[in-house]
Amino acid sequence: MDNGDIKNKLITTATRLFAECGLHGVSVRELSKAAGVSISMISYHFDGKERLYSSVLVEQFSCFDHIDVIKKSVCEPLDKLEDYIRWSIRRYREKPYLLKFYTSELTNPTHYFAQIVQPAIEHVILVLIEIIEEGIRKKQLRSELNPEDTALALVGMVNYYFLSTLATQGLVNHSPQRDEDLTKHYMDIFTKGISATSGNKPY
Amino acid sequence: MDNGDIKNKLITTATRLFAECGLHGVSVRELSKAAGVSISMISYHFDGKERLYSSVLVEQFSCFDHIDVIKKSVCEPLDKLEDYIRWSIRRYREKPYLLKFYTSELTNPTHYFAQIVQPAIEHVILVLIEIIEEGIRKKQLRSELNPEDTALALVGMVNYYFLSTLATQGLVNHSPQRDEDLTKHYMDIFTKGISATSGNKPY
Repeated sequence: MDNGDIKNKLITTATRLFAECGLHGVSVRELSKAAGVSISMISYHFDGKERLYSSVLVEQFSCFDHIDVIKKSVCEPLDKLEDYIRWSIRRYREKPYLLKFYTSELTNPTHYFAQIVQPAIEHVILVLIEIIEEGIRKKQLRSELNPEDTALALVGMVNYYFLSTLATQGLVNHSPQRDEDLTKHYMDIFTKGISATSGNKPY
Repeated sequence: MDNGDIKNKLITTATRLFAECGLHGVSVRELSKAAGVSISMISYHFDGKERLYSSVLVEQFSCFDHIDVIKKSVCEPLDKLEDYIRWSIRRYREKPYLLKFYTSELTNPTHYFAQIVQPAIEHVILVLIEIIEEGIRKKQLRSELNPEDTALALVGMVNYYFLSTLATQGLVNHSPQRDEDLTKHYMDIFTKGISATSGNKPY
Protein backbone atom coordinates (compact mmCIF):
# COMPACT_ATOMS: atom_id res chain seq x y z
CA MET A 1 0.00 0.00 0.00
CA ASP A 2 1.29 3.50 -0.79
CA ASN A 3 0.69 6.45 1.52
CA GLY A 4 -2.59 7.42 -0.16
CA ASP A 5 -3.92 3.86 0.13
CA ILE A 6 -2.93 3.67 3.80
CA LYS A 7 -4.63 6.97 4.54
CA ASN A 8 -7.84 5.90 2.75
CA LYS A 9 -7.80 2.51 4.43
CA LEU A 10 -7.46 4.15 7.84
CA ILE A 11 -10.36 6.56 7.15
CA THR A 12 -12.63 3.76 5.90
CA THR A 13 -11.84 1.47 8.83
CA ALA A 14 -12.05 4.26 11.39
CA THR A 15 -15.42 5.40 10.02
CA ARG A 16 -16.92 1.98 10.71
CA LEU A 17 -15.27 1.48 14.12
CA PHE A 18 -15.94 5.00 15.43
CA ALA A 19 -19.55 4.79 14.19
CA GLU A 20 -20.05 1.54 16.09
CA CYS A 21 -18.01 2.22 19.24
CA GLY A 22 -17.59 5.99 19.49
CA LEU A 23 -14.36 7.98 19.79
CA HIS A 24 -13.59 6.58 23.24
CA GLY A 25 -14.73 3.02 22.55
CA VAL A 26 -11.93 2.08 20.17
CA SER A 27 -8.16 2.12 20.73
CA VAL A 28 -5.32 3.06 18.37
CA ARG A 29 -4.23 -0.58 18.52
CA GLU A 30 -7.67 -1.84 17.42
CA LEU A 31 -7.80 0.76 14.62
CA SER A 32 -4.41 -0.16 13.21
CA LYS A 33 -5.13 -3.90 13.49
CA ALA A 34 -8.51 -3.60 11.75
CA ALA A 35 -6.98 -1.47 8.97
CA GLY A 36 -4.05 -3.89 8.59
CA VAL A 37 -1.44 -1.14 8.91
CA SER A 38 1.28 -0.43 11.44
CA ILE A 39 0.24 1.55 14.52
CA SER A 40 2.77 4.29 13.71
CA MET A 41 0.82 5.12 10.54
CA ILE A 42 -1.96 6.69 12.63
CA SER A 43 0.45 9.21 14.14
CA TYR A 44 2.20 9.71 10.80
CA HIS A 45 -0.97 10.43 8.79
CA PHE A 46 -3.30 11.88 11.41
CA ASP A 47 -1.24 12.88 14.41
CA GLY A 48 -3.17 10.43 16.61
CA LYS A 49 -6.63 8.97 17.22
CA GLU A 50 -8.39 12.27 17.97
CA ARG A 51 -7.31 13.80 14.66
CA LEU A 52 -8.28 10.63 12.80
CA TYR A 53 -11.75 10.95 14.37
CA SER A 54 -11.99 14.61 13.33
CA SER A 55 -10.93 13.67 9.76
CA VAL A 56 -13.74 11.08 9.71
CA LEU A 57 -16.25 13.71 10.88
CA VAL A 58 -15.07 16.22 8.26
CA GLU A 59 -15.44 13.57 5.55
CA GLN A 60 -18.90 12.48 6.77
CA PHE A 61 -20.31 16.00 7.07
CA SER A 62 -18.68 17.50 3.96
CA CYS A 63 -21.70 16.45 1.89
CA PHE A 64 -23.83 18.95 3.85
CA ASP A 65 -22.34 21.66 1.60
CA HIS A 66 -24.77 20.51 -1.07
CA ILE A 67 -27.46 22.61 0.62
CA ASP A 68 -25.81 25.64 -1.00
CA VAL A 69 -26.43 24.16 -4.45
CA ILE A 70 -30.11 23.81 -3.52
CA LYS A 71 -30.16 27.34 -2.11
CA LYS A 72 -28.70 28.86 -5.29
CA SER A 73 -30.78 26.84 -7.74
CA VAL A 74 -33.14 28.91 -9.88
CA CYS A 75 -36.47 27.47 -8.79
CA GLU A 76 -39.36 28.20 -6.48
CA PRO A 77 -39.15 27.63 -2.70
CA LEU A 78 -41.39 24.53 -2.80
CA ASP A 79 -39.15 22.95 -5.43
CA LYS A 80 -36.13 23.66 -3.25
CA LEU A 81 -37.81 21.94 -0.29
CA GLU A 82 -38.54 18.91 -2.47
CA ASP A 83 -34.90 18.90 -3.59
CA TYR A 84 -33.90 18.99 0.09
CA ILE A 85 -35.98 15.87 0.83
CA ARG A 86 -34.60 14.02 -2.21
CA TRP A 87 -31.00 14.94 -1.34
CA SER A 88 -31.41 13.96 2.34
CA ILE A 89 -32.70 10.53 1.43
CA ARG A 90 -29.85 10.02 -1.07
CA ARG A 91 -27.30 11.19 1.52
CA TYR A 92 -28.33 8.50 4.01
CA ARG A 93 -28.31 5.86 1.29
CA GLU A 94 -24.81 6.84 0.17
CA LYS A 95 -23.34 7.29 3.64
CA PRO A 96 -24.59 4.44 5.83
CA TYR A 97 -22.65 5.60 8.92
CA LEU A 98 -23.61 9.27 8.73
CA LEU A 99 -26.73 8.97 10.91
CA LYS A 100 -24.72 7.29 13.69
CA PHE A 101 -22.27 10.20 13.87
CA TYR A 102 -25.12 12.67 13.48
CA THR A 103 -27.11 11.30 16.43
CA SER A 104 -24.18 10.41 18.69
CA GLU A 105 -22.61 13.87 18.29
CA LEU A 106 -25.98 15.52 19.01
CA THR A 107 -26.68 13.42 22.10
CA ASN A 108 -23.11 12.94 23.42
CA PRO A 109 -20.95 15.56 21.71
CA THR A 110 -17.18 15.17 21.52
CA HIS A 111 -15.07 18.31 21.53
CA TYR A 112 -15.25 18.31 17.71
CA PHE A 113 -18.99 18.89 17.77
CA ALA A 114 -18.75 22.69 17.98
CA GLN A 115 -16.08 22.81 15.28
CA ILE A 116 -17.41 20.37 12.66
CA VAL A 117 -20.89 18.99 13.35
CA GLN A 118 -22.76 21.96 14.77
CA PRO A 119 -21.86 24.37 11.94
CA ALA A 120 -22.81 21.76 9.29
CA ILE A 121 -26.25 21.05 10.80
CA GLU A 122 -26.93 24.69 11.65
CA HIS A 123 -26.08 25.80 8.12
CA VAL A 124 -28.56 23.34 6.55
CA ILE A 125 -31.33 24.49 8.90
CA LEU A 126 -30.50 28.13 8.32
CA VAL A 127 -30.80 27.68 4.55
CA LEU A 128 -34.15 25.85 5.00
CA ILE A 129 -35.38 28.74 7.18
CA GLU A 130 -34.41 31.21 4.44
CA ILE A 131 -36.21 29.11 1.79
CA ILE A 132 -39.35 29.01 3.97
CA GLU A 133 -39.15 32.75 4.58
CA GLU A 134 -38.83 33.32 0.83
CA GLY A 135 -41.94 31.14 0.31
CA ILE A 136 -43.88 33.21 2.86
CA ARG A 137 -42.75 36.48 1.24
CA LYS A 138 -43.89 35.20 -2.16
CA LYS A 139 -47.23 34.15 -0.58
CA GLN A 140 -46.65 30.56 -1.65
CA LEU A 141 -46.43 29.44 1.98
CA ARG A 142 -48.81 30.32 4.79
CA SER A 143 -47.96 33.54 6.61
CA GLU A 144 -48.76 32.02 10.04
CA LEU A 145 -45.80 29.62 9.86
CA ASN A 146 -42.89 29.97 12.25
CA PRO A 147 -40.02 29.38 9.79
CA GLU A 148 -37.67 27.90 12.41
CA ASP A 149 -40.11 25.26 13.71
CA THR A 150 -41.20 24.51 10.14
CA ALA A 151 -37.61 23.83 9.08
CA LEU A 152 -37.05 21.47 12.04
CA ALA A 153 -40.30 19.66 11.24
CA LEU A 154 -39.11 18.94 7.70
CA VAL A 155 -35.64 17.77 8.72
CA GLY A 156 -37.13 15.57 11.43
CA MET A 157 -39.58 13.89 9.06
CA VAL A 158 -36.83 12.78 6.72
CA ASN A 159 -34.24 11.85 9.35
CA TYR A 160 -36.64 9.69 11.35
CA TYR A 161 -37.51 7.54 8.37
CA PHE A 162 -33.90 6.32 8.52
CA LEU A 163 -33.37 6.57 12.27
CA SER A 164 -36.40 4.34 12.95
CA THR A 165 -35.50 1.65 10.42
CA LEU A 166 -34.45 -1.04 12.91
CA ALA A 167 -37.61 -0.62 15.00
CA THR A 168 -40.09 -0.31 12.14
CA GLN A 169 -38.90 -2.73 9.48
CA GLY A 170 -41.85 -5.01 10.26
CA LEU A 171 -44.28 -2.15 9.61
CA VAL A 172 -42.73 -0.01 6.89
CA ASN A 173 -41.06 -0.92 3.62
CA HIS A 174 -37.67 0.84 3.74
CA SER A 175 -36.53 -0.31 0.31
CA PRO A 176 -34.50 2.20 -1.75
CA GLN A 177 -36.81 1.44 -4.70
CA ARG A 178 -39.45 3.43 -2.84
CA ASP A 179 -37.25 6.53 -2.28
CA GLU A 180 -38.71 8.67 -5.07
CA ASP A 181 -42.29 7.81 -4.03
CA LEU A 182 -41.35 8.63 -0.45
CA THR A 183 -39.94 12.00 -1.54
CA LYS A 184 -43.21 12.84 -3.30
CA HIS A 185 -45.34 11.55 -0.42
CA TYR A 186 -43.42 13.47 2.24
CA MET A 187 -43.61 16.58 0.06
CA ASP A 188 -47.36 16.03 -0.28
CA ILE A 189 -47.81 15.66 3.51
CA PHE A 190 -45.58 18.64 4.23
CA THR A 191 -47.25 20.99 1.76
CA LYS A 192 -50.92 19.93 1.94
CA GLY A 193 -51.12 18.42 5.41
CA ILE A 194 -53.05 15.33 6.35
CA SER A 195 -56.46 16.83 6.98
CA ALA A 196 -59.27 16.29 4.49
CA THR A 197 -60.85 19.54 5.69
CA SER A 198 -58.02 21.97 5.25
CA GLY A 199 -58.76 25.46 6.51
CA ASN A 200 -56.57 26.94 3.78
CA LYS A 201 -58.00 29.20 1.20
CA PRO A 202 -56.35 29.50 -2.19
CA TYR A 203 -54.76 32.94 -2.50
CA MET B 1 -29.25 3.45 52.80
CA ASP B 2 -31.74 0.57 52.91
CA ASN B 3 -32.09 -1.90 50.03
CA GLY B 4 -34.74 0.18 48.24
CA ASP B 5 -32.57 3.30 48.44
CA ILE B 6 -29.53 1.43 47.14
CA LYS B 7 -31.51 0.01 44.21
CA ASN B 8 -32.91 3.46 43.32
CA LYS B 9 -29.50 5.07 43.67
CA LEU B 10 -27.99 2.46 41.34
CA ILE B 11 -30.73 2.96 38.73
CA THR B 12 -30.41 6.76 38.84
CA THR B 13 -26.62 6.69 38.59
CA ALA B 14 -26.58 3.99 35.93
CA THR B 15 -29.13 5.89 33.82
CA ARG B 16 -26.82 8.88 33.62
CA LEU B 17 -23.60 6.89 33.07
CA PHE B 18 -25.06 4.46 30.50
CA ALA B 19 -26.70 7.38 28.65
CA GLU B 20 -23.37 9.17 28.43
CA CYS B 21 -21.00 6.22 27.84
CA GLY B 22 -23.14 3.32 26.59
CA LEU B 23 -23.40 -0.18 28.05
CA HIS B 24 -19.80 -1.04 27.17
CA GLY B 25 -18.31 2.35 28.05
CA VAL B 26 -18.75 2.08 31.81
CA SER B 27 -17.45 -0.57 34.24
CA VAL B 28 -19.08 -2.13 37.30
CA ARG B 29 -16.40 -0.44 39.40
CA GLU B 30 -17.23 3.01 37.97
CA LEU B 31 -20.96 2.42 38.50
CA SER B 32 -20.58 1.40 42.14
CA LYS B 33 -18.15 4.24 42.85
CA ALA B 34 -20.43 6.87 41.26
CA ALA B 35 -23.46 5.50 43.16
CA GLY B 36 -21.47 5.39 46.40
CA VAL B 37 -22.36 1.76 47.10
CA SER B 38 -20.31 -1.41 47.39
CA ILE B 39 -19.57 -3.21 44.12
CA SER B 40 -21.31 -6.37 45.39
CA MET B 41 -24.64 -4.48 45.49
CA ILE B 42 -24.77 -4.54 41.66
CA SER B 43 -24.70 -8.35 41.63
CA TYR B 44 -27.04 -8.54 44.63
CA HIS B 45 -29.74 -6.26 43.19
CA PHE B 46 -29.31 -6.71 39.44
CA ASP B 47 -27.27 -9.83 38.84
CA GLY B 48 -24.54 -7.79 37.12
CA LYS B 49 -24.03 -4.83 34.78
CA GLU B 50 -26.02 -6.21 31.84
CA ARG B 51 -29.16 -6.67 33.93
CA LEU B 52 -28.71 -3.23 35.47
CA TYR B 53 -28.61 -1.82 31.94
CA SER B 54 -31.77 -3.72 30.98
CA SER B 55 -33.51 -2.42 34.14
CA VAL B 56 -32.58 1.11 33.11
CA LEU B 57 -34.01 0.52 29.61
CA VAL B 58 -37.25 -0.93 31.03
CA GLU B 59 -37.61 2.10 33.31
CA GLN B 60 -36.86 4.58 30.49
CA PHE B 61 -39.25 3.02 27.97
CA SER B 62 -42.09 2.12 30.37
CA CYS B 63 -43.64 5.56 29.75
CA PHE B 64 -44.34 4.49 26.13
CA ASP B 65 -47.34 2.56 27.50
CA HIS B 66 -49.15 5.90 27.68
CA ILE B 67 -49.91 5.57 23.96
CA ASP B 68 -52.65 3.08 24.98
CA VAL B 69 -54.36 5.79 27.05
CA ILE B 70 -54.36 8.02 23.95
CA LYS B 71 -55.60 5.15 21.79
CA LYS B 72 -58.53 4.39 24.11
CA SER B 73 -59.53 8.00 24.75
CA VAL B 74 -62.98 8.92 23.47
CA CYS B 75 -62.10 11.60 20.96
CA GLU B 76 -61.56 12.09 17.25
CA PRO B 77 -58.39 10.92 15.45
CA LEU B 78 -57.02 14.46 15.04
CA ASP B 79 -57.38 15.08 18.78
CA LYS B 80 -55.52 11.85 19.46
CA LEU B 81 -52.68 12.98 17.19
CA GLU B 82 -52.51 16.30 19.03
CA ASP B 83 -52.41 14.39 22.33
CA TYR B 84 -49.56 12.31 20.94
CA ILE B 85 -47.53 15.46 20.15
CA ARG B 86 -48.23 16.96 23.59
CA TRP B 87 -47.32 13.72 25.37
CA SER B 88 -44.10 13.25 23.34
CA ILE B 89 -42.89 16.72 24.21
CA ARG B 90 -43.70 16.18 27.90
CA ARG B 91 -41.94 12.80 27.84
CA TYR B 92 -38.65 14.31 26.67
CA ARG B 93 -38.94 17.10 29.24
CA GLU B 94 -39.52 14.63 32.07
CA LYS B 95 -36.91 12.06 30.99
CA PRO B 96 -33.80 13.96 29.91
CA TYR B 97 -31.82 10.78 29.11
CA LEU B 98 -34.54 9.00 27.12
CA LEU B 99 -33.52 10.39 23.73
CA LYS B 100 -29.92 9.18 24.22
CA PHE B 101 -31.06 5.59 24.83
CA TYR B 102 -33.62 5.90 22.04
CA THR B 103 -31.07 6.99 19.42
CA SER B 104 -28.14 4.87 20.60
CA GLU B 105 -30.27 1.69 20.67
CA LEU B 106 -31.62 2.47 17.17
CA THR B 107 -28.19 3.16 15.70
CA ASN B 108 -26.06 0.71 17.72
CA PRO B 109 -28.44 -1.79 19.31
CA THR B 110 -27.42 -3.86 22.30
CA HIS B 111 -28.92 -7.32 22.66
CA TYR B 112 -31.74 -5.77 24.72
CA PHE B 113 -32.98 -3.79 21.72
CA ALA B 114 -35.20 -6.58 20.38
CA GLN B 115 -36.59 -7.35 23.81
CA ILE B 116 -37.26 -3.88 25.26
CA VAL B 117 -36.72 -0.99 22.84
CA GLN B 118 -38.03 -2.32 19.54
CA PRO B 119 -41.43 -3.44 20.92
CA ALA B 120 -41.91 -0.10 22.71
CA ILE B 121 -41.20 2.02 19.61
CA GLU B 122 -43.07 -0.30 17.26
CA HIS B 123 -46.15 -0.26 19.48
CA VAL B 124 -46.32 3.56 19.49
CA ILE B 125 -46.01 3.67 15.71
CA LEU B 126 -48.57 0.91 15.27
CA VAL B 127 -51.11 2.83 17.37
CA LEU B 128 -50.42 6.01 15.37
CA ILE B 129 -50.97 4.05 12.14
CA GLU B 130 -54.32 2.80 13.50
CA ILE B 131 -55.35 6.35 14.47
CA ILE B 132 -54.45 7.61 10.98
CA GLU B 133 -56.36 4.73 9.36
CA GLU B 134 -59.37 5.56 11.53
CA GLY B 135 -59.13 9.19 10.38
CA ILE B 136 -59.06 8.10 6.73
CA ARG B 137 -62.06 5.79 7.26
CA LYS B 138 -63.99 8.65 8.84
CA LYS B 139 -63.00 10.88 5.90
CA GLN B 140 -61.34 13.33 8.28
CA LEU B 141 -57.92 12.59 6.78
CA ARG B 142 -57.00 12.46 3.09
CA SER B 143 -57.53 9.08 1.48
CA GLU B 144 -54.24 9.30 -0.49
CA LEU B 145 -52.11 9.10 2.66
CA ASN B 146 -49.88 6.13 3.28
CA PRO B 147 -50.60 5.62 7.01
CA GLU B 148 -47.16 4.12 7.78
CA ASP B 149 -45.13 6.96 6.25
CA THR B 150 -47.52 9.49 7.77
CA ALA B 151 -46.99 8.05 11.26
CA LEU B 152 -43.19 8.17 10.85
CA ALA B 153 -43.40 11.76 9.62
CA LEU B 154 -45.24 12.82 12.78
CA VAL B 155 -42.91 11.00 15.17
CA GLY B 156 -39.88 12.41 13.35
CA MET B 157 -41.14 16.00 13.55
CA VAL B 158 -41.46 15.86 17.32
CA ASN B 159 -38.31 13.84 18.05
CA TYR B 160 -36.06 16.07 15.96
CA TYR B 161 -37.07 19.20 17.84
CA PHE B 162 -35.31 17.64 20.85
CA LEU B 163 -32.59 15.75 18.98
CA SER B 164 -31.42 18.92 17.22
CA THR B 165 -31.34 21.10 20.35
CA LEU B 166 -27.55 21.31 20.70
CA ALA B 167 -27.06 22.25 17.05
CA THR B 168 -29.94 24.71 16.75
CA GLN B 169 -30.06 26.56 20.04
CA GLY B 170 -28.73 29.69 18.31
CA LEU B 171 -31.63 29.57 15.81
CA VAL B 172 -34.60 28.15 17.70
CA ASN B 173 -36.01 28.93 21.13
CA HIS B 174 -36.23 25.53 22.88
CA SER B 175 -37.71 26.88 26.10
CA PRO B 176 -40.32 24.65 27.82
CA GLN B 177 -42.53 27.75 28.10
CA ARG B 178 -43.11 27.40 24.39
CA ASP B 179 -44.14 23.71 24.50
CA GLU B 180 -47.89 24.24 24.23
CA ASP B 181 -47.46 26.74 21.34
CA LEU B 182 -45.14 24.24 19.67
CA THR B 183 -47.75 21.47 20.06
CA LYS B 184 -50.37 23.66 18.37
CA HIS B 185 -47.97 24.81 15.65
CA TYR B 186 -46.77 21.28 14.82
CA MET B 187 -50.39 20.13 14.75
CA ASP B 188 -51.21 23.03 12.42
CA ILE B 189 -48.32 22.14 10.06
CA PHE B 190 -49.15 18.44 10.16
CA THR B 191 -52.87 18.86 9.49
CA LYS B 192 -52.96 21.84 7.10
CA GLY B 193 -49.51 21.68 5.53
CA ILE B 194 -47.33 24.64 4.75
CA SER B 195 -48.65 25.59 1.34
CA ALA B 196 -50.82 28.67 0.92
CA THR B 197 -52.45 27.05 -2.11
CA SER B 198 -53.62 23.73 -0.74
CA GLY B 199 -55.18 21.44 -3.29
CA ASN B 200 -57.53 20.01 -0.68
CA LYS B 201 -61.24 20.36 -1.10
CA PRO B 202 -63.48 20.32 1.96
CA TYR B 203 -65.47 17.10 2.03
